[in-house]
Amino acid sequence: MKTNKKHAGGKEKQQIKPYKKDAEYSYTLGAFPTFELLKARPEVVRKVLVHSSFTDAEKLKSICSEQNITIEVNDKLLKRISDKENCYVAGVFEKYSDKLRTDRPHIVLVNPSNMGNLGTILRTAVGFGIYDIAIILPGADIFHPKTVRASMGALFRLNHHRYSSFEEYQKEFKEHEFFTFMLNGKKTLTIKDCPKSKLFSLIFGNEATGLDDSFLDVGTSVIIPQSPDVDSLNLTIAVGIGAYIFTNQ
Amino acid sequence: MKTNKKHAGGKEKQQIKPYKKDAEYSYTLGAFPTFELLKARPEVVRKVLVHSSFTDAEKLKSICSEQNITIEVNDKLLKRISDKENCYVAGVFEKYSDKLRTDRPHIVLVNPSNMGNLGTILRTAVGFGIYDIAIILPGADIFHPKTVRASMGALFRLNHHRYSSFEEYQKEFKEHEFFTFMLNGKKTLTIKDCPKSKLFSLIFGNEATGLDDSFLDVGTSVIIPQSPDVDSLNLTIAVGIGAYIFTNQ
Repeated sequence: MKTNKKHAGGKEKQQIKPYKKDAEYSYTLGAFPTFELLKARPEVVRKVLVHSSFTDAEKLKSICSEQNITIEVNDKLLKRISDKENCYVAGVFEKYSDKLRTDRPHIVLVNPSNMGNLGTILRTAVGFGIYDIAIILPGADIFHPKTVRASMGALFRLNHHRYSSFEEYQKEFKEHEFFTFMLNGKKTLTIKDCPKSKLFSLIFGNEATGLDDSFLDVGTSVIIPQSPDVDSLNLTIAVGIGAYIFTNQ
Repeated sequence: MKTNKKHAGGKEKQQIKPYKKDAEYSYTLGAFPTFELLKARPEVVRKVLVHSSFTDAEKLKSICSEQNITIEVNDKLLKRISDKENCYVAGVFEKYSDKLRTDRPHIVLVNPSNMGNLGTILRTAVGFGIYDIAIILPGADIFHPKTVRASMGALFRLNHHRYSSFEEYQKEFKEHEFFTFMLNGKKTLTIKDCPKSKLFSLIFGNEATGLDDSFLDVGTSVIIPQSPDVDSLNLTIAVGIGAYIFTNQ
């Protein structure tokens, strides 16, 4: 199985190292996210690594063959790039950036800090049909293998773009109706009374600090009704509820 | 600051060890869950540990004093029982079991396997006003410090009970209307068409395997509509959506 990709061929001998944030490539660890990568973004795949004891490789071989992607049996490398010892399949892929669609709804995450949460949010967004995600930096690394794994590969199904400030995002999407999720939001988000909007941006703050009060004046601030017995809902749950009710109108 | 509690006094010299599943006690790691423990379940607290460099102890001292709970400054012990080095406050508490209320809705988790997920689900349940949780064993340890931390202390606000089988649960709650969340559920759970029920049990399976097909005949099987681009929703998100729409009727 050979590759005809220039970048992959040229970097064949470049040593693959444990993941670093500033590296140009990252990994899918495990069979499920690797298949998602191969299906949704074959053009960014450098190669696929399999463990010598991986027995179920037929489907993988067939997809890689179709796409002219190299499969390499390399137990040592798999162990080095994964924390877990039982990782039998990994994909090595080039990082990329997308342009968000102007005609579709968005989820905007302002300074998300936890990679597991970020991955779960990507999976949830795709689950509810929202395929455009803005990340306002600083924020968790969307390409970290932990984020990719938590997303179950949903990362590859959607468009994402990272912005250095909320203002930068705001300037680019003037047609979108903004909804900020805040504990002191002005509108209570009940099922019967969800704002009707076709082109919306659902905006969520950091896990620990939420959105600061300047966001009260950005579009419509909303709160998901919740019991006084909790400090707040988990960020992933808030995004899940928001995405569900805005897409089910 | 002294204690007048018999069990606490009697075990004063018993060595506190890193958490074990079969131990009679567990820990809240961090100030937030420790305050929740002290507020909601003071009767199960053995003692509170603080780090010598913890400066914000006034409120803690006052609550412990009111409840006659010992505060111990013990940096070594804090380090030993917590993975993180920056744990400044911990509560040591006796494990307990509750009886679920027959007149309130339940969430039933069949073999949940991830402690972080379980904690997030407890927090979400309380957030949406569901205070009675059944766990069908085997399942993640509800008293593990990781679960307690992920729950943000919500564990202490609700009743939970562990059952050795679903049948055992089912026999005890004959008045509850059962809803099983399944990818092959018969009824699609839309906002406009959520079953109306006052006394419901929302039943969810394991993260990886879901509920097996025998649950199709237990009450009404439901599915949260989701895109074919994901394998399934994350368990915590499914519980969040279910709890939100059933409690917002």
